Amino acid sequence: MDITKAYRSAKYQVTGHGPREINALHDAVEFAEGRYKVADIYGSGPVIADFEHKISNLCGKEAAVFFPSGTMAQQIALRIWCDRKGVKRVAYHPLCHLEIHEEDGLKKLHGIETILLGEAGRLFTLEDLKAIQVPYSALLIELPQREIGGLLPEWKKLVAITEYCRERGIAIHLDGARLWEAAPYYGKTEKEICALFDTVYVSFYKGIGGIAGAMLLCSESFRSQAKVWKRRHGGDIISLHPYILNAWSNFDRRHGKMERYWESAKEVAALLNESEQLFTKPEIPQTNMFHLVFRVERGIVEEAAVKTVEKFGIGLIPNLRMRDNGELVCELTLGDSIARIPKEDLTKAIVYFNQALDN
Amino acid sequence: MDITKAYRSAKYQVTGHGPREINALHDAVEFAEGRYKVADIYGSGPVIADFEHKISNLCGKEAAVFFPSGTMAQQIALRIWCDRKGVKRVAYHPLCHLEIHEEDGLKKLHGIETILLGEAGRLFTLEDLKAIQVPYSALLIELPQREIGGLLPEWKKLVAITEYCRERGIAIHLDGARLWEAAPYYGKTEKEICALFDTVYVSFYKGIGGIAGAMLLCSESFRSQAKVWKRRHGGDIISLHPYILNAWSNFDRRHGKMERYWESAKEVAALLNESEQLFTKPEIPQTNMFHLVFRVERGIVEEAAVKTVEKFGIGLIPNLRMRDNGELVCELTLGDSIARIPKEDLTKAIVYFNQALDN
Repeated sequence: MDITKAYRSAKYQVTGHGPREINALHDAVEFAEGRYKVADIYGSGPVIADFEHKISNLCGKEAAVFFPSGTMAQQIALRIWCDRKGVKRVAYHPLCHLEIHEEDGLKKLHGIETILLGEAGRLFTLEDLKAIQVPYSALLIELPQREIGGLLPEWKKLVAITEYCRERGIAIHLDGARLWEAAPYYGKTEKEICALFDTVYVSFYKGIGGIAGAMLLCSESFRSQAKVWKRRHGGDIISLHPYILNAWSNFDRRHGKMERYWESAKEVAALLNESEQLFTKPEIPQTNMFHLVFRVERGIVEEAAVKTVEKFGIGLIPNLRMRDNGELVCELTLGDSIARIPKEDLTKAIVYFNQALDN
Repeated sequence: MDITKAYRSAKYQVTGHGPREINALHDAVEFAEGRYKVADIYGSGPVIADFEHKISNLCGKEAAVFFPSGTMAQQIALRIWCDRKGVKRVAYHPLCHLEIHEEDGLKKLHGIETILLGEAGRLFTLEDLKAIQVPYSALLIELPQREIGGLLPEWKKLVAITEYCRERGIAIHLDGARLWEAAPYYGKTEKEICALFDTVYVSFYKGIGGIAGAMLLCSESFRSQAKVWKRRHGGDIISLHPYILNAWSNFDRRHGKMERYWESAKEVAALLNESEQLFTKPEIPQTNMFHLVFRVERGIVEEAAVKTVEKFGIGLIPNLRMRDNGELVCELTLGDSIARIPKEDLTKAIVYFNQALDN
């Protein structure tokens, strides 16, 4: 049986907030009731302005632009920085979203070259930055670095990197797709984290669990330029309220729960690490996400996962993929769903799964 | 008083389908009930596939891609044609949407040059095409040509233009933002019209009255390429179902009403043309839209419009703008709203408005 199908068919799932169902739109409609009657139109109107204001305030930035996607928001942010600095080159981690998930939009649409910092399997360091020999306009930092298990640089190192860039006139952009999820580890507010960055992108459908949507946080002048590029990209959609309202209602519901999701991740990772057939990356999760790396073959993992679903009704392994480095990996991201699973059953299911991997 | 505010404050409005209200999202949720439970995800899933299939079938094209906006769909269509033909140049009307409403996305993102055909104030002709001295990959034809009152070329002339291009290997793309609205004038089906074109863009929020959304109709191989560019643009949004479901429910509601909207446009235009202080473009509307061109000053129009709202509760003039050619213009697009106005009152209101323009 297909592992993802088995996972979805289970009574309980260990990851996420639940299936992406269409009736989540009810949230948007209910949220609007009594507050907003009229749709936003081409980026204007109370619905969009109020939400932009709320998030820019929370993050301590002057202005914000709501985007239909992070892909669009980040390409545009880097384009504006390149145009301002006069150099069409940016630096980021080798497994940056723009490098591996966007069909090279940054290069094909904007003609921007990229510098890949350090090595794919680890966070980049100040030393990696110092090794760059060519001029570049901006540095993109992703917090946490998703593709290596959601790793976060230590705060001091992060500060040192941003200071290094600032001294050299290099713009610092935060890929904050999981900023809300990263804040508990640092024990800092989003405002304190964002203060290190010139521009920030945040997302509303990952930890927050909205339908879709992103926001670029920046200065007023940057906002004006971003809105022009948003139109050029075809992102200045006549009305974005279905995404905005759903994002907002879910933000209010889940923004305060990130520490709880993180705790769940640590608990699940500890239980899984009892097995010698796998290890988690990182060993102790730094956010609500981590990667499982298996030491056994795919067939064994699949069988163990499917048997766990059959015996306990609990889905543990939503996905499995072979990385370029030959590692067999599963990404786990914790949310509301795990709280629905009776705790004893979850423990038993993981113990059972671990034992099944030994066979 | 502001003319747009006065228009909106009126009990009745002569144009459109009613205000863009957030509770239109209920349509989407209701439409999904019992049919679709799970959201589309990155362009896949029954919700998006079924609607794409429905529209591509109706228009006689092999495949379709739903886009969040027409801006994105059309830039991408032209980019693919340019790449296929090996020439980064396209031809279109001087008042093409891509030329005047998209902040030059086609040029700035795709590096595509444009040839402006004929003169802004009229439809372009085969002679205009024949005058082109440089190679180009694609011709974009907008049916109807919105910015000059929604004019349509005669069918024979349209056929001759497309045959001319086909013989020369020039791709023919239809800007069908108002294709549904154009079909009654030709007395042809969408399929018959689309057969003249290699690729077609259609919209779901103009005559159809959805929240937002567009579709590109094309071949299977074109679709594969369009999906790559959709991701590059940041338009491969994790879920588009709020737009899709609302577009679909409104499509089913309004697609069959386009002839009725056209009749309304002809009636209103005839009544307004009784005044000597204005004329309509075209004199007899060819679709549900037309332009009013005033021979009197803005202040007089504004006063007459506001007084008509005050006396009859009927908004006639939703907008007013000065065109580059010095014409004071109002665009009227007829939809469901006019049917709510008692017919006698509407006639009286227009007669009153016409008289007020004389003073």
